Amino acid sequence: MRCDVVAVGTELLLGQIVDTNSSWLGEQLSLAGIDSHLQVKVGDNQARIVRALRSALEDADAVIVCGGLGPTHDDITRESIAEVMGAPLELRDDIAQRIESMFTARGRRMPANNLRQAEVPRGAEPIDQRRGTAPGLICPVGDKVVYAVPGVPYEMTEMYERAILPDLLRRAGSAATIRSRVLRTWGESESGLNERLQGVIERLEHEGNPTLAFLASGWEGIKVRLTAKAGTADGAASLLDRWEREVRDQVGDVVFGTDAETMESVVLGMLKDRGLTLGIAESVTGGLVAGRLTNVPGASAVLRGCVVSYASEVKFDVLGVERGPVVTEQAARQMAAGARRVLGADVGLALTGVAGPESQDGVEPGTLCVGIAMPDGTETSSTVRLPGTRDVMRQLSVISALDALRRRIEAGT
Amino acid sequence: MRCDVVAVGTELLLGQIVDTNSSWLGEQLSLAGIDSHLQVKVGDNQARIVRALRSALEDADAVIVCGGLGPTHDDITRESIAEVMGAPLELRDDIAQRIESMFTARGRRMPANNLRQAEVPRGAEPIDQRRGTAPGLICPVGDKVVYAVPGVPYEMTEMYERAILPDLLRRAGSAATIRSRVLRTWGESESGLNERLQGVIERLEHEGNPTLAFLASGWEGIKVRLTAKAGTADGAASLLDRWEREVRDQVGDVVFGTDAETMESVVLGMLKDRGLTLGIAESVTGGLVAGRLTNVPGASAVLRGCVVSYASEVKFDVLGVERGPVVTEQAARQMAAGARRVLGADVGLALTGVAGPESQDGVEPGTLCVGIAMPDGTETSSTVRLPGTRDVMRQLSVISALDALRRRIEAGT
Repeated sequence: MRCDVVAVGTELLLGQIVDTNSSWLGEQLSLAGIDSHLQVKVGDNQARIVRALRSALEDADAVIVCGGLGPTHDDITRESIAEVMGAPLELRDDIAQRIESMFTARGRRMPANNLRQAEVPRGAEPIDQRRGTAPGLICPVGDKVVYAVPGVPYEMTEMYERAILPDLLRRAGSAATIRSRVLRTWGESESGLNERLQGVIERLEHEGNPTLAFLASGWEGIKVRLTAKAGTADGAASLLDRWEREVRDQVGDVVFGTDAETMESVVLGMLKDRGLTLGIAESVTGGLVAGRLTNVPGASAVLRGCVVSYASEVKFDVLGVERGPVVTEQAARQMAAGARRVLGADVGLALTGVAGPESQDGVEPGTLCVGIAMPDGTETSSTVRLPGTRDVMRQLSVISALDALRRRIEAGT
Repeated sequence: MRCDVVAVGTELLLGQIVDTNSSWLGEQLSLAGIDSHLQVKVGDNQARIVRALRSALEDADAVIVCGGLGPTHDDITRESIAEVMGAPLELRDDIAQRIESMFTARGRRMPANNLRQAEVPRGAEPIDQRRGTAPGLICPVGDKVVYAVPGVPYEMTEMYERAILPDLLRRAGSAATIRSRVLRTWGESESGLNERLQGVIERLEHEGNPTLAFLASGWEGIKVRLTAKAGTADGAASLLDRWEREVRDQVGDVVFGTDAETMESVVLGMLKDRGLTLGIAESVTGGLVAGRLTNVPGASAVLRGCVVSYASEVKFDVLGVERGPVVTEQAARQMAAGARRVLGADVGLALTGVAGPESQDGVEPGTLCVGIAMPDGTETSSTVRLPGTRDVMRQLSVISALDALRRRIEAGT
């Protein structure tokens, strides 16, 4: 089964918007075992959309078209598909009424333009709109099919999962349910993970299901993704459970979370479970650690606050660090203790380092010292060397420091 | 002149990497007055790359191929172009020696694989590699042309600007120099800018050069881009100077910077020029303001630090805010004064607000109070209502608060 993608919109060609839809679809299709060999961006021009669709249908069994379903005159995906089908557009009363009622519910009058969104090529089936005003379309072309979805990612992804993927799997004659699980890791290279998982990988290759893939995700670490196929969702889940255990048996120490969990949500959750509050002192990262933690809804139950001690005097005067060099493990421990005390927190986490481009007090760019102060007053510290430009080094510092805290909490309070 | 783009790489189709190269190229081409009507992603498969190139050459005058120039067996862009040209690949000694010397300079031995990067289809011209090991290629196909560049953005952009754009303009018979300038704005909607610039836009449309475009950039504000064409770089620059003045005459109050300037670099520059230091107190943004300021190299000359007072007690105990509701203009002013005092800064900037999803103390999500304390002890405050989800509201708060500080400093210290 091969399903290509056509993204429609002149703004994509002009680089005003980056086409992330086809990347997302490519990943989802490959998870489902469907090839996507060609992905095309084309402008709001009917002749060129029609040509791109015809060309894609020559090689692929299915084509997903994203975008061009809006109400304005340059939204011409419906017309283009109708031309490829050789079918007229027909106004569907039921769709028109639903769109009108969406406007009414918001106390607004529906502009006449929006009626265009109720047009469906004869022989096509609409896909209910749940998040926007534009319905999607399932359009048979001979024994092949063109799917149309809105270009808004939030509307597109929902329609893909609800209507398109099941239809594709049905056409592929596959009754399989596909589920994947991501184990998020930090602290081991891709080749290191590969080596430690060699035995698991060989057994998986032998069995063929689930499959295992590494996804390097920069300063978010490396993801290990298991994808299982089974007759039922429960069957897939139990396969994933079993192989997740196998993977954790080998590399459990570097797995910090699964699926949508992030390092910050995991650390906040661990502290919350233990009834502990957190205070932070940051220098090199300048507020990024606190900024990321506070992006998690509910962070206020754990995080008391943060002192960004960018100037050395703030470290001395506010946090009580001894005067002297400030990129040292001792300074990091004293900053952590200061954060606990000043912010009235149970646990203190501190970062001091050099992001560059220049060295500071003889300390090279890329150096990060992390200090942790625990409720019983014990203070620990560590030093890591991080690569990258200023921005990359700072981002790597954030996740490195949070991972150090995660390990410290796991080691026992 | 039409130049289409083919991005090569199976990882692009699988969604492991988002293709930002063709978006960047699309923007650059349109700035140069060159159409790009079709942009294609294709995997590492010679038959499909050849087919994509042939199909693009049917309609376009030129095609830029990104990626597939590496040293490994799945890098087959060279072979694919040679097939399209009907020409053999020839090993170029001069290129081989240059690649080998790059390895020698790093004290490493060149793997034999890398010799592949010294192969050039007969009749093609290499483009010197300055940033990586892979040279680019200029490959005539009849009276059309295929350009090949590495997929690494940093290598690709340099080759485009140095070798491809001049070659394209020469082929287009254009001796023009194209320059653009971006005026960065905050605080006015796109339709508001459009209305205020109506007279300028009409005159520009009449004259045809420079052109003016609005680029909505989310929480970075709206960019107004002027693009001028002239016989010389000086001629283009003087056209841009003249029309920048015309634009500023109408909307100068919302222009905060030009080209690569950001709100944070502008605010830091204004403070530095006046010999003032800054202290911050953040609540709703949780460290994001300090995090962005400290991403500017040299921020330490201005920024003393920041107190992220996420818990109300930190506002009361550390910053000296009066006990009571904490999302008020009074609390914002007291936080700003507290930041000045605690951090030993000349100027204090404070943010308190509700990001949501829930209301807090009866204050609705989207509410932001900004407080500013100046060196003479005067304190001012303002309240804005911001749209969006939690993350968007927080990012909009960062730029809104920095813009308030920018305006306050301009109004006179």
